[in-house]
Amino acid sequence: MAKEVVNKEVVSREEDYSKWYNNLVVKADLAEQSAVRGCMVIKPYGYAIWEKMHEQLDKMFKETGHVNAYFPLFIPKSFLSREAEHVEGFAKECAVVTHHRLKVAPDGKCVVVDPDAKLEEELIVRPTSETIIWSTYKNWIKSWRDLPLLCNQWANVVRWEMRTRLFLRTAEFLWQEGHTAHATAEEAEAEKTQMVNVYAKFAREVMALPVVVGHKSPGERFAGALDTMTIEALMQDGKALQAGTSHFLGQNFAKSFDVTFTNKEGKQDYVWATSWGVSTRLMGALIMAHGDDNGLVLPPALAPIQVVMVPLYKSEEEHNAVLDKMYEVKKALEAKGHSVEIDDRDTLRPGFKFAEWELKGVPVRLAMGPRDLQNGTVEVARRDTLEKISEPLEGLEDRIIGLLEDIQKNIYNKALAFRDASIRKVDTWEQFKEEIEKGGFLLCHWDGTAETEAKIQEETKATIRCIPVDSALCFEEGKCIYTGKPSHQRVLFARSY
Amino acid sequence: MAKEVVNKEVVSREEDYSKWYNNLVVKADLAEQSAVRGCMVIKPYGYAIWEKMHEQLDKMFKETGHVNAYFPLFIPKSFLSREAEHVEGFAKECAVVTHHRLKVAPDGKCVVVDPDAKLEEELIVRPTSETIIWSTYKNWIKSWRDLPLLCNQWANVVRWEMRTRLFLRTAEFLWQEGHTAHATAEEAEAEKTQMVNVYAKFAREVMALPVVVGHKSPGERFAGALDTMTIEALMQDGKALQAGTSHFLGQNFAKSFDVTFTNKEGKQDYVWATSWGVSTRLMGALIMAHGDDNGLVLPPALAPIQVVMVPLYKSEEEHNAVLDKMYEVKKALEAKGHSVEIDDRDTLRPGFKFAEWELKGVPVRLAMGPRDLQNGTVEVARRDTLEKISEPLEGLEDRIIGLLEDIQKNIYNKALAFRDASIRKVDTWEQFKEEIEKGGFLLCHWDGTAETEAKIQEETKATIRCIPVDSALCFEEGKCIYTGKPSHQRVLFARSY
Repeated sequence: MAKEVVNKEVVSREEDYSKWYNNLVVKADLAEQSAVRGCMVIKPYGYAIWEKMHEQLDKMFKETGHVNAYFPLFIPKSFLSREAEHVEGFAKECAVVTHHRLKVAPDGKCVVVDPDAKLEEELIVRPTSETIIWSTYKNWIKSWRDLPLLCNQWANVVRWEMRTRLFLRTAEFLWQEGHTAHATAEEAEAEKTQMVNVYAKFAREVMALPVVVGHKSPGERFAGALDTMTIEALMQDGKALQAGTSHFLGQNFAKSFDVTFTNKEGKQDYVWATSWGVSTRLMGALIMAHGDDNGLVLPPALAPIQVVMVPLYKSEEEHNAVLDKMYEVKKALEAKGHSVEIDDRDTLRPGFKFAEWELKGVPVRLAMGPRDLQNGTVEVARRDTLEKISEPLEGLEDRIIGLLEDIQKNIYNKALAFRDASIRKVDTWEQFKEEIEKGGFLLCHWDGTAETEAKIQEETKATIRCIPVDSALCFEEGKCIYTGKPSHQRVLFARSY
Repeated sequence: MAKEVVNKEVVSREEDYSKWYNNLVVKADLAEQSAVRGCMVIKPYGYAIWEKMHEQLDKMFKETGHVNAYFPLFIPKSFLSREAEHVEGFAKECAVVTHHRLKVAPDGKCVVVDPDAKLEEELIVRPTSETIIWSTYKNWIKSWRDLPLLCNQWANVVRWEMRTRLFLRTAEFLWQEGHTAHATAEEAEAEKTQMVNVYAKFAREVMALPVVVGHKSPGERFAGALDTMTIEALMQDGKALQAGTSHFLGQNFAKSFDVTFTNKEGKQDYVWATSWGVSTRLMGALIMAHGDDNGLVLPPALAPIQVVMVPLYKSEEEHNAVLDKMYEVKKALEAKGHSVEIDDRDTLRPGFKFAEWELKGVPVRLAMGPRDLQNGTVEVARRDTLEKISEPLEGLEDRIIGLLEDIQKNIYNKALAFRDASIRKVDTWEQFKEEIEKGGFLLCHWDGTAETEAKIQEETKATIRCIPVDSALCFEEGKCIYTGKPSHQRVLFARSY
C-alpha cells in the first residue's frame, strides 16, 4: 500500500518517541539540519506554520498596545557584562565576532581572516536583547510622559548550545522578544502577568495546548529577572516543555544602563522593566503534543493547508468533472478565509496522497470520484480522529467550516484530558521517585529552598516546572516531599525538554 | 509658533539635502544610530512603514507562486570561497565569528573571549545567502519534478560598510532575498524578469516611485550573476538610488555546490538560478523621493497612520462633543480598513500637533472644533499639497477615502513629472560633463566597454544606472559620448547613492 511507502520511515511513538519526533520534523518537511553546526533550515511547510504563529501573536501584541521595532543583531561585549547575572547566564554560549574582513590567503587558494581587520571590541551575536535595548531606551526615556514604552521585536538570536535538536534547542532560532519600560513596579508586574496570559491564551486557543501558568522557582528564573512566569505544556511522552516566559526585571537593567525618568512628582527614579518571549521552540511543542503515528496533527488555526482535496477518476472526462466541482468548493471555502489545496498530481496514486497529507497533518481531507458526483456526496476524512464519512455535497462548505471548529476543539480537549490524567498529587518521597518514572506533572509540596530543588533534580532529573497560579491546583498546607518541612503550596514537578 | 518649535531642527532641502535627510530620519522617529558601529535601531514608526512594505511585497511574492523559508544566519567560510566572483564581492566586508564562548577575565573584573572556544572553521554572518541556500538545495533537488523551487526569505544581513548612513547603507539591514531554481535557462531568465517587474509594480503603485527598469552593465552586476536587472529611482537632489535588483545567476552556484537534476529526458544537468532582493534601503528612497521641508510625505498605501484627527476645544463639554464625533468618523474609516489616530494629548497645543503630524508625513489631517460641529463641517488638510479646506461632515468617510486615493496618485504624478523633467538626452562629452553637475538621469550612447564606463565614472562620478528595457527611451543608433564609437542604444547615466 502506498500509505506504508510514505510512513514506513516514521517510527511509532511507543517504539522511540525521540526518533518519532525527529522523523516527523524531517519527513513532514518542517525543518532540517544545515551545514552549520546546530543551525536549522526551516523548510517552507514548517515556516508557513511559524508565519501563522507570528501573525496571530503579533495581532495579540498590537491589541494589547505594543509596537514593533528592530534593534541591532550585535551587542558590544562590554554591554553584556553590565548586568552581572545576565552575563553569567549567557557568556558560555555566545557567538563572538572578532574581525570584519577576509582576504585571500598567501597561497592564493582560499580566503582567511584578515588579521588587520580585528575589531577594537568584540561583538556578541545577540542571545537576547535586554542590554542593547536598554542602552537605547536611555535616550528614549526622560519623563513619565515617555512611559510606558511597549516595544516588541521579531528577530533571530544565537545561543551556542552544545546539544541541539530541531526546533527544541538550536544554536540560532527565531523568536519575538517584548521589552517594556514602566514608571512603577506595579505596572511592570501587571505587564508581565498580562503577557504570560496572552501566551496562555495563544497556546490554548490557537495551538490547542492546555498549558499550566505559573511562576518559576528562583533558581529557574531568567538571568537578571526578579520574577519569571511561564507557560508549561505537557508532551505525549510525559515530559514538560517550557513554551513561553515573561519576566519582571525590576530596575536591574535600568540601573545597569542608567535609565532614569522624572516622575510626576518631579523626582528622578529608575525605570521598571519586563521582557517576554516565545520562539520557534513552539513548533516543537506543537508537533510533540498533537502528532500521532501517522504524522503531524495540526490544529486548523495553524494549518497552512486546512482542507486538501484528492480527485479520484479513471477517464479524462471524469477527471474534469471532479475537478470542476472541487474548484467550486475551494472557491467557496477560500472566500470565507480558509486555505484549500487540490492535489491534482498525476504521477501519484490517491492512497499515496492520503498518507502524505496525513503525515503533514492537514485537518480535513476530501476525496471525490465520479460516483460521488452522481450521488451528490463526498468522502470527508478528519485528521484528528482518522474518521471517514460520506457527506452530501449540498451545504458542504458550512459543514466543513463547522468541522474545522470541531477539530480545533477536539485536539485541545484530547490534550487537556491527557494533561489532567497526567497531573498527580504526590506526598511522599518514595512515591515521588516511583511516579516521576511514569512521566507527567507531579503536584508536590516543597520547602521553598534552592538546596532541596537541586537535590530533587540530582536524584530524579525532575525540576520545578512552575509554581502554578491556579489556586485550585495547589493552594493547601502540607510538608515538603523531600525534607518534610512545612509548605503552603504545591508546586509542579516534571522532567522536561 | 509651535510649528517652528517642532521643525526648526529640520534644515531645508535647498540648504543641505544630506542633512535634511538625516534630520528627517531622526526627527520623524524612523531610525537612529545604535551603540554598534554602522548598525541602526529602527524605531517603531519607521518599523511600521517597513512592516507595510513587507506585508505588501510578501503578498505579491505569494501571488507569483513563491513560499517563504528560513536559512542559517551563519555561512561557513569555505562556502563563500566556492564561487570565485562571489567571494571577491563580499570578502572585504564580512563580520567573522571566530569563537563561541566568553569567560571571566583573570582579574575577575570583565569578560573576555575564551581562547579555548575557537571555532574549527570561522563563520561569516551572511552578507547574502546564495551559498548556504545552494548547499541546501543540493539535497532538495533530484529531478525536474522538484523544479521550479521558488523560495524567499525575510532576514537580516550584514555587510561591513565603512561609511554608513541610516537606511541607505548600514552594516546590518533587513531585506528579503528570493532564491529560485529552474530546469532551463529560459525559465530562470523569465523569473528574473518577472521579479524585477514585481518590484517595479510595488515601487510605482505602493511607494509612488516612478522607477526605471533596466539591466545593469556587466561591471555593475551582482557578484556571481550573468545578468542583473534593477529598478532605479530618482531622488529630489537629482541623484539616482538603486531600489531593488533581480539576478540571473546561470548555473554558477549550481556548479559551485554541485546541484544537478535529472531532466525529462533522463539526463543530468546543472540547475539554473535566480536571486532577487529589496531591503530597508527602500525606506531611504521613500523619504528622499517624497519628503519636503516640513517633513515626510508618506503615500497612503504605506502610512502607518493615514488619517490623524486633532480636536479643538475650550471647555470640557466642547472637548467631549468633538471627541464623540471623531470616534464616530474613526470607527467608520477603520471599518473600511483605514488607520486613524485621534491625537487627544492634553499637554500640547493644536499647532504643535499639526506640525508634528506634518513632520511624520500623515496623509490626511482633520481638525474639528465646536464651530465645526455646529456647522456640520470639518477642516481637512492634505499633507502632499498642504492644502486645507472645510468639508461637510455629511458623507465625510467616502470623501476621505477618495482623498487618500487622490493623494497616492498625486504623489506618484509629482515624482513622475520630476523624473521626466530630469531625463535628458545628451550627445557630446562636453555637454555630459556640464549636465551631470545639474543631476538627473542622462540618456547617452555608450560603446559598451568596461574601460569607457570606468573612465566616465572616474572623470564625473557618474555611473551607468541601467540599460533601460523601455525601447521608447533609448533604442536608437548613435555614437558613444566618450569614445565616439558606434552604439545601438542609449543607457542611463547618473550620480547615485
